[in-house]
This record gives sequence, C-alpha cells and structure tokens, in this order.
Amino acid sequence: MNSFGKLFRITTWGESHGPAVGVVIDGCPSQIPLSESDIERELERRKPGRPGTSPRKEPDKVQILSGVYKGLTTGTPISLIVWNQDVDSTPYHELEDVFRPGHADWSYFHKYGIRDPRGGGRSSARETVGRVAAGAVAKKVLDQEGIGVFAFTLELGGIRSEEIDLEFTKTNWLYCPDPKALFEMEKRLIEVEEEGDSVGGIVEIRAFGCPPGLGEPVFDKLDADLAKALMSIGAIKGVEVGSGFSSARMLGSEHNDPLTPQGFLSNNAGGILGGISTGQEIILRVAVKPIPSISKPQITVDVKGNPRQIFIKGRHDPCAIPRIIPVCEAMVRLVLVDHLLRQRALRGTSSFK
Amino acid sequence: MNSFGKLFRITTWGESHGPAVGVVIDGCPSQIPLSESDIERELERRKPGRPGTSPRKEPDKVQILSGVYKGLTTGTPISLIVWNQDVDSTPYHELEDVFRPGHADWSYFHKYGIRDPRGGGRSSARETVGRVAAGAVAKKVLDQEGIGVFAFTLELGGIRSEEIDLEFTKTNWLYCPDPKALFEMEKRLIEVEEEGDSVGGIVEIRAFGCPPGLGEPVFDKLDADLAKALMSIGAIKGVEVGSGFSSARMLGSEHNDPLTPQGFLSNNAGGILGGISTGQEIILRVAVKPIPSISKPQITVDVKGNPRQIFIKGRHDPCAIPRIIPVCEAMVRLVLVDHLLRQRALRGTSSFK
Amino acid sequence: MNSFGKLFRITTWGESHGPAVGVVIDGCPSQIPLSESDIERELERRKPGRPGTSPRKEPDKVQILSGVYKGLTTGTPISLIVWNQDVDSTPYHELEDVFRPGHADWSYFHKYGIRDPRGGGRSSARETVGRVAAGAVAKKVLDQEGIGVFAFTLELGGIRSEEIDLEFTKTNWLYCPDPKALFEMEKRLIEVEEEGDSVGGIVEIRAFGCPPGLGEPVFDKLDADLAKALMSIGAIKGVEVGSGFSSARMLGSEHNDPLTPQGFLSNNAGGILGGISTGQEIILRVAVKPIPSISKPQITVDVKGNPRQIFIKGRHDPCAIPRIIPVCEAMVRLVLVDHLLRQRALRGTSSFK
Amino acid sequence: MNSFGKLFRITTWGESHGPAVGVVIDGCPSQIPLSESDIERELERRKPGRPGTSPRKEPDKVQILSGVYKGLTTGTPISLIVWNQDVDSTPYHELEDVFRPGHADWSYFHKYGIRDPRGGGRSSARETVGRVAAGAVAKKVLDQEGIGVFAFTLELGGIRSEEIDLEFTKTNWLYCPDPKALFEMEKRLIEVEEEGDSVGGIVEIRAFGCPPGLGEPVFDKLDADLAKALMSIGAIKGVEVGSGFSSARMLGSEHNDPLTPQGFLSNNAGGILGGISTGQEIILRVAVKPIPSISKPQITVDVKGNPRQIFIKGRHDPCAIPRIIPVCEAMVRLVLVDHLLRQRALRGTSSFK
Repeated sequence: MNSFGKLFRITTWGESHGPAVGVVIDGCPSQIPLSESDIERELERRKPGRPGTSPRKEPDKVQILSGVYKGLTTGTPISLIVWNQDVDSTPYHELEDVFRPGHADWSYFHKYGIRDPRGGGRSSARETVGRVAAGAVAKKVLDQEGIGVFAFTLELGGIRSEEIDLEFTKTNWLYCPDPKALFEMEKRLIEVEEEGDSVGGIVEIRAFGCPPGLGEPVFDKLDADLAKALMSIGAIKGVEVGSGFSSARMLGSEHNDPLTPQGFLSNNAGGILGGISTGQEIILRVAVKPIPSISKPQITVDVKGNPRQIFIKGRHDPCAIPRIIPVCEAMVRLVLVDHLLRQRALRGTSSFK
Repeated sequence: MNSFGKLFRITTWGESHGPAVGVVIDGCPSQIPLSESDIERELERRKPGRPGTSPRKEPDKVQILSGVYKGLTTGTPISLIVWNQDVDSTPYHELEDVFRPGHADWSYFHKYGIRDPRGGGRSSARETVGRVAAGAVAKKVLDQEGIGVFAFTLELGGIRSEEIDLEFTKTNWLYCPDPKALFEMEKRLIEVEEEGDSVGGIVEIRAFGCPPGLGEPVFDKLDADLAKALMSIGAIKGVEVGSGFSSARMLGSEHNDPLTPQGFLSNNAGGILGGISTGQEIILRVAVKPIPSISKPQITVDVKGNPRQIFIKGRHDPCAIPRIIPVCEAMVRLVLVDHLLRQRALRGTSSFK
Repeated sequence: MNSFGKLFRITTWGESHGPAVGVVIDGCPSQIPLSESDIERELERRKPGRPGTSPRKEPDKVQILSGVYKGLTTGTPISLIVWNQDVDSTPYHELEDVFRPGHADWSYFHKYGIRDPRGGGRSSARETVGRVAAGAVAKKVLDQEGIGVFAFTLELGGIRSEEIDLEFTKTNWLYCPDPKALFEMEKRLIEVEEEGDSVGGIVEIRAFGCPPGLGEPVFDKLDADLAKALMSIGAIKGVEVGSGFSSARMLGSEHNDPLTPQGFLSNNAGGILGGISTGQEIILRVAVKPIPSISKPQITVDVKGNPRQIFIKGRHDPCAIPRIIPVCEAMVRLVLVDHLLRQRALRGTSSFK
Repeated sequence: MNSFGKLFRITTWGESHGPAVGVVIDGCPSQIPLSESDIERELERRKPGRPGTSPRKEPDKVQILSGVYKGLTTGTPISLIVWNQDVDSTPYHELEDVFRPGHADWSYFHKYGIRDPRGGGRSSARETVGRVAAGAVAKKVLDQEGIGVFAFTLELGGIRSEEIDLEFTKTNWLYCPDPKALFEMEKRLIEVEEEGDSVGGIVEIRAFGCPPGLGEPVFDKLDADLAKALMSIGAIKGVEVGSGFSSARMLGSEHNDPLTPQGFLSNNAGGILGGISTGQEIILRVAVKPIPSISKPQITVDVKGNPRQIFIKGRHDPCAIPRIIPVCEAMVRLVLVDHLLRQRALRGTSSFK
C-alpha cells in the first residue's frame, strides 16, 4: 500500500497528471524546526530536466498544511502538498488504450481493471515527490543526531566512476564522483538521446554517523528494510549491501571484517551485521534500469489484446539518473529515522539506558 | 521484529541452543489439509550437514500445537514447535565474552546490552527452522493455486552454472543445475574446507504460475516485499529481480520486454512491472556471503574492548549453500501467499470480480 | 497515530485553525463510483451549528485530489482536502498559555512539549471532517453490498427516547427517534445554553445487512475494533454492544439468544458472537460526555503552573450531539468495510468459497 | 488476528482441548529479570475453579522456551507454553454438530466453514492463558517504572460493592472490595448454580503511577486502545472510562475536572484527556455478561439447520468473575507497556527530552 515506516510513517498520494501530489508524515517527533524551504531544497534536486533541455517544468513549491506551529513540528501529522502545474496530457490520449513496454500500464490494468493513463498515473516518477518531501523532514531529524546520507552515480550507461571524489559529486548535475567518468557519461547520454534510446546505471548510497544498534531482527533487519525501501522505487532492479554480489566470490577469511580496539579494519559488511548497524558507514548500491520511455518504435498490445506498434512521444529523460539520486537518499533517510525511533523505544528502561 | 506478512503472518522464535525453535502462523485460510509430514519434508531439506560428514544432527520433528483439527486448518493460529536436541554449547564457553568477526555478536551486544552466545543465539541459522516450517504451510496454499517456487545454485565459490537443467537440480545435494559445474563446486568445497576457509555463492529463485496482479504499489510492491524477505535471511548481501544489476548496462530498447497477443517476448522484468506481477515467471537472485565461521585464526576484540585472537571450533559448513536454498524458497512462498490473500481482498466487489 | 484500518486504511491530518483538514484513503477497491457530492452529503450532516444559531460557518467543500479517474476509484490512494475558511483564532490568544478543563490542552502539552492552541489544534472536533469524508467513501463500498449504518440519539441531557421510530429520526436535526423526547431535548438544550453550561447523552448506532463472518478473533474481533473506533472519537467515554452494561444484571438463561431454523429469537449479543458478526443487526451505544467548553467561570492552571480562572469565549454548541452522530456512523462504516475486505481475503481459496 | 500491540507485541495461540496454549512476546526490552514463577503467579489467579469445587484442574506450569538468558530477557522473542493436561472432550462429542446459544460456535462455523468443537476450541476462555502469561511479562516492565494495575468486582449478579476497600479485595476469592457485598455475592452464586443458571457483573480496573503523555491521537488514543483490549476479551459487552455512561447525564460544569497547582480536583476523565494519560489514576469498567454455558434446557439448531434442544454438561463456573479479573489486568498492562515504549520513541531527541 502507500504507507511506509512503523513509527515515522509516511503516506504518499497523487497521480502524475492529477491536481496535486503529496504526503502525510505521521510520528515525527515534536519541536523539530521545519519550513517550506527545508523541503523545497530537496525537491529542487529531483526536478525534471537537465540543464539546457526543456521538458516538463514544475515549480514544485510545497505547502505545509498541518503539523507545524510557529516553525516547529507539534507531533501531529504533517501534511505536505505540491500542486501539479505544467501538465500536458495530450501525448497520452493516443496511449489510453495501449500498454507501453517496460512500464506498469499492463500490470496496473490487470490488477485494478482500470488505470489513469495520463503521464503514467500513479506509477509515474512524479509519485516520488512525496517521498522526497518526506525525506526532507526525516533529514531534519537525522541532522540533529549527526547522521548524514548521500548518494552518487557509480556507473551510468556502462561508464564506471573509477575515482570516488565525494566533493566532486557536489559540483556536477550527474552526482558523478569522477571527473573523467563524468565527461564520458555526458557523452554517452547525448548519444543515446540522439538514438532515441535510454540507459541505466548504478547508484551508491552511504550513511555516516549512524549509532550502533539500529535494526530489528529477524525480519525488520536494517538491511531488509533498506532493501524494501530502495526496491520500492520504480526502475530499481537490484539492491546490495557492502560487498554485495561480489561477496559471492570472496573467501570467508577475506570477507570477515576484523575487529580491533580501534574499530573494524574493513567494511565488507557495509555497516550492518546480523541486520543491526555497527556504527560503521552504511554502504548500499542499487541497479537502475534504462528508462522504458524511448522514441524508437516498439511492439505491444492494446487493451483488447490486439498487436500495436507505438512511438512514445512526450517529454522524457534518457536516464533515471540523476533524478533518482535524491529519491534513494530520501528512502534511506526514512528507514534510518524510523529505526532510530524504534531503537529509542527499547532504551531508557530502568535496566538498560 | 519477529513477525512477517500482513494477512498471512508468521512470528518466529527460538535460539540455537535454547530448548526449541518455532513459529506461529496467523491468517492461514481454513480447510487446508496439513500434517506434520508436510512440514518435515521441507525441514529435511534444510538440515545441517552434507552427506558423509557429521556435524550437528537434529531430527527436526515438528509438532503442530494448534490450528489444525482432523487434518484441516481451522483458520486459527497454527503453532509449530521443533525441539533442539543435539545441542553442544561447550565450544561457545570460550566465545562468551568475545565477538566473532562477520557474525552478529558485536551488533547484538551493542543493541541489547546482553546476548545469548551459545551457538549464535537468535542470530544463528537455526532461526530459519521457523521460516521453513511456515513456508511449508504457505506451500500447501500455493499448491492449491498452481503456484510453484524453486531455487537452485547459480554460482558457488566462483564456479558458475552455465547450463540450467532444472531437472538435474533435483538429483544433487547442491541444487546445482549443471553437471559440469557440480563437479567443480564439490571440488572447491573440499579445498576451502581443508584450508579452514569458506565460500559464498549466488542462488536463483523462480516462481511460476503466479496470476497477474500481485503486489501493492507504491511501497508494498511485490519486488520490494520479496527484497525485504530475502535480505532478512542471514548471509544474504544482495537481491536482484529479472535482469537485475546487468540491466544497468542495457539499453532501453534491449531491456523493455515487447508485448504480443501471445504474451511477453522476453522477461528482463523478472515477472514484475511497477511492483505488480505480470503472470510471467518471477525471477530473483541473491548473493550469499561466505560463512563467517572459519577455522583460520582471526583477530577481534572481547566485551571489554581488548584485542583477542580466536580460532572458531564447533561444527560448521564451508558454505551457506545449499542449506539456504529452502529458506529462500520459504521466504518467497510467504510473500506470494500474503499478496495472494491481499489481492483477493480487493476482488470480489460487486463492481470488480 | 493518525491511521486507522488494516486493508481499508485512512490517515487523517489537520488542525482546527490550520489551512485545511483532510484524509488519505488507502486500499479502497477500484471501480467504485465516487464524486465530491457523495462526500459533501455526509460532511453537510456534521457541520457546525444548529438551525437558527450562528457559530463557525464552513462551506466544507471537499476536493478529490487523487485516486479517482473518470468518476471511478482506481485502487490508488484517495486524497481528500477540505479548506478551513471561517477561522477566527482571536478568542484563543488569551488561552495560549492556559489549559482549559476537560479539554486535551494539558495532556497534549505534556506529551509533546508544544501545542497549537488555536481552536484546540489537532484535538478539535474539526479533526472529524477527515473521518466523515472517509466514511462517505466507505459508505459507497457498503452500499454495493447492501450494508447500511445509521445512528440516533437515545438520550440527551437526561431525556430518554422511549419510543424508537427510526423514520422520525430523519425528520429532525437531533436525530431523535421519539417526538415527545425531541420536544424535551430541545427545551433542555435551550436551558443549559442559557446557563452557559453543556450536556451529554447516549447515541445508538445500528448496522444492518452485514454478512456473518466479519471479525478476526482473538484480538481483531469485530466488537473490539468497533470499540476502538468509537472510543477514539473525542467526548466518548463508554461503548457497549447489544445488551451492554445491562447484561451485567441478566441471567444466562435470559441473555443467551436462542437459535431456531428461522434465525435468532433475540439479539442480546448485538449481532456479534465471539467477536464475529452473526448476520443479525449490529447494535452499539456510546456515552457522550458534556462538551467541556462552557461559559461558566472555571479554575485551572497556566503553562507555568500558576492558578488561573477562565471564561471560555468563542463559538460552541451546548452538546456534542447531534454533530457526533455522523462521526459515529463513519467510524462504524470504516470498521465494517475493513473487515469485509479482510474476510474476502480468507474466502475464495480452492477449498473454501 | 491473534497479535496485539505495536512495539510490545504478543501473539497467542492454542485451543482449549489441543495439546497446549501459548504466547510469543516480541519487543520486550532486554535485561528485564524474568522467571517461570513470575508468570505462574499470575496464571495461578486465573485458574479454573473456586475453592471447594472440582472442575477442570490444570497445573498451568509455564515453560519459557526462548528470549531469556541467565534469568534476563535478551530482547529476542519470548515464547511461553502451557500444556493442556486435564482435557476431557467427552461432553463435547454430542455438541459436535450443534451450536450452543450465546457461544461462538455458530459464528466460527460460518466464518471458517470448520471449527474445533472440543471445549469451545479457540473461542474458549482457555485462550486467555496466553494473555495472562504475557501480562505477567508486561508487569515486570511496569514494576520497574512504578506503574501498577489492579482490578476488582464492582458488581456481581446484581449485587453492588458499595464500599471500596481495596485491601479487602486481596483477602477474598471474588476480588470483592466490600465485605457486606461479598456475603451477598457468594449467596447469589450458590443460588444460580443450583438453578443451573449463570450471572454477569461489572469489573473495575485501575492503573496508578502512569506518567502523563501515554496515548497517540487521533486513533491510537490510550482509551481507544484500552477499549479494544478489554472488548477483545470474551464475555465483555461494554467498556467505560472514568465517569463513563454516567457522564451522559452530567453537566459540563460537573464533569470538567478543575486544575489547580496541586493537580486535578476530580477524575471524571478517568486519567485520560484527549486520548492521552494525565498522570491521574486510570479508571476503567467493563460489563461482563452471564456465562452462556448453563445447565437449563435451551433451544438451538444443528449444523444442518434442524431445531435441537440441548443441555450443556461439562464443567462450568456460574460467573466469569473472578476468573476474568486477571485477564482484564493483563490486557491493561499490555496496552500500558506498549504505549510506554511508543512514548519513549518520541522522547530523547535533541530538541525534546
């Protein structure tokens, strides 16, 4: 369903071409300073369109409808709304009765027997506005605890960032940590766009400053909840923690992170052991599939099962990266805040503080 | 926490060297035939020890304590118990105050301020008895719907199954689908065991017969819940769906699965689009890390933070595969049954049957 | 927290004097016809103010922001918003640092360390707009199944409805089923208003057309969930089912409802046995306390603990009845729809249809 | 379903005449001292049979199967089991195909299509063993915080306790606080037993030492969760808080509890305002219906709908009081612990401690 989190719980709503999208955040601790600009700063980062292009333009101004009094959260639900403004449903009229390959059109129709085809409806990436807005509130709570989350582009269109210069990621629109790779990635994006095609990539997300003890075995393990959070983002086809899939080819003697009085000597675990944070940096990577909306002709079927060929018009990016970056950060923040609150519930008894 | 599922909900309990392990299954439909042997058949498959070796021997006889009357489920909670019998806690006495690298010792201690060190306590693989027992009940429900789930060893210790002969997987203890790879895998296991080391691998899980429509966007997507379910298994460091991490290097025109009146022409989606099943085969892969218990000397610290060197004695496998195979199957079955029931709740209205 | 329901799940938000109040409804079946007027019809019934008086006037126009396409629900979350318009926070300026007796001011402040004092903030009866709007959607689903819910005033200010003429309840603003009692109740209301005081009462809620089988023992029993739903409404201090508190003085031979081939001969159970609906009419009663906002002087304390005397100005009704009537109906409808969906999940297996 | 609580979460299982009944407690803080005798002390109080009679005799010895190491809770799930020993299903053979009036036989059969008729199966009062065992664990946590819960018999068979001498309740098997009423109650019980009939009553439950701030508006209000908890107990037909149903006849000026620097001057609120504890004593009352198992002939129907007359044999008490008393206490304790943990999650942020 459309809620996520146990104690810090969000509920998102809204369709791509409906009047608005939004989120209700329930369980936010009281007395956290919060303003519209805190949220818009994050929304700005997921905005459609790369420099120099002109796809859908949304101001993405947020309105705080509840839960804040005199600039402080009150502990009551925080309702955030972002109006959809630059909506052009024209290109979708001819897609109303046809299923776009790689999109959720077919599955939504077969699940619900009805779907809003305009802009992908609920399955549009516009849905992530609510996630990012909620993530901005989570960020305010994490900031107080000194916990930081950031993501960068490890790979795009087959080009790998070999050098990881985290400062450099802040200087470019692709969140690429490697100047050489950035040049190649941009070139690749222009190529595929000219071909009317699209590419995927890999995003790495890191969290620092997490205290040990977050995560609730055996099912609500921190890595399990993070995997769910990230896999729930459209376009993500894989999630790994620490050494991830490469651990399948390691020896135990290589993979185990030795412990010393000064701390762990390595971090193959990715900051999580037994589903519980160790206090080391948390390291996650996600596989992002190529955006399914391409200009090339594709074969498909319509609602009645007849064969059809389609050319998808409309406004599309050739890669979900970088717009997916702030969404990944938001989802990781939401999991961390939720587990931070859950951990607090268990501390503070007379016997264990 | 220790419950999983929304409508078909399980709660597992038990420590490796406690008196018993078990599970309570709540929300199972009534009138499903169920006997102890249905469950023991699955437990048999996750039993410790490979042919010819002699580690911990558990008969793993299950007792149905509730929820079944005259061989049929009654709709009330099904409590299953498996007594621990062959428990030898001696090797753990010297590990009581020391943290084994790669294990959850350190994190459990820092989360709870106390831990049961005997056999890993709650973080032991013995915890999965409850999962597999519950999965056997889920299997009974899925059988009625013609939904099947099976897993096999795609890779072990760096050796890849190049040929996928699903019938062959049933003939060997490693669930390997490739006769040539099987020979190499067995050789590799003997080598690493002699070296006192361990290896990891990759398991592929497939589900066939799923109807379209399972999964509840935008957070309880089928792939998101499957990712959580699988990542919650100890030793798993990565999860992917369909083309997974390789989709990061594909073009949109390659990745999109074309639709025809006869169905999809490919399955890069892994049977899930927009978080909803399409009716195609569901395809998942998980990365299994090398078992952290190795005989080689390792450096670590004790409870007081002093440096220590340890040699882990006791009884251990050199690889979590094949024992993790039935656990993966169980978790996938639990997710599928839960979503099957959730989907039923939405159907059957007067307007949508 | 601010969500209610397991499958048909609502999340309400908003403060009395904030910009708006609203609700997100998640899990509504698809293809249910739904329009703004369906919702406004119910909101109309909970509007402030009785005929001839002039307290806060809110048009209570609702806007459907998502989840409906071409007049039908799509299965995605339905976001409803009602803007607050006639807000006058002036009377609350002097109450900002003082706790009104009988209100939630004191407890909110001690729970959250901060509170929005304007109009009672989140603890205002205005919060119930979201409940009633969601209940209107639930009503649409129940209508399809032939399930009806209605409430009436059994007692007000000590005056009891001796005759229960359900048709008559529709003809008067107090939902009183007894013409004689209505006359007395109206007189009593004028008296207490002149005295600057307030009165309570008892509301009876009935549901007809429920199929047998709703309710999930042993904790999510139908009566247990109804009790929670009703007790969560501000001003309600007691809930009873069927013979309720009077059953404490009955004999078993009186209380047991005999079964015949034609059905039950009585309904002391109130339509629920063992927490499961029997198909008989469901009968509930709630005790409504007198509204705490009275014009008489009251002693209290301020935020710093100093003694204070207050006179509460502003716009208030002398009784929570009849405005609480549609709120009670809404909550009962929400519970019934949720359990209807839950029950569907268990039916339809191959073995039990 | 069979779980209750959000953070301190219990799952009960077991049928009256199955091999055992039990409970799994998840989310219990670690390092709480816990032994079998802590639990058996509470189980002792709910044992069948009053002094001098000889109904079903169960030793009710509990076994802690997990979650405790060296006498302390470890934070992992605590599984408790009580074996059923004195099971005599003979009297139920002739009730197998017939529905007992006032019992859940009819509704279970219509919900699940199958039922275990032996001793009432899951709907038996024996199910409450799991509740009371879990409540004993909750009591250990509450003891550390100085929170106490106790219940007494306010009314039985129409006889009211006029004097409330709480010390006296400890001295008699009926938990009656009034020596004169006790004499009458005992006489009444003998009478109805001789008549082959049964009586109901009213139980009052009080909790002292609760800090202000427990309860989570607007749906998980403390009184709402308490109402659900108590209404989920078989035989309970009504729940009220503080002045309860009598508040319906009070004036606002009477009902409002005035605040002074020394605290509240009265407690009509029953210790809860706006769904949040005030720190005053929490006061609850429940209506207990007469036990439906009576020796008098009753008319009913069988599974095929044919009319039948039955005489219920077997072993039964003439009143659910006093055995329901420890169950009420257990449910209130479970709600309080859960909300105590939930409240802790919100405190302790940098901005609000």
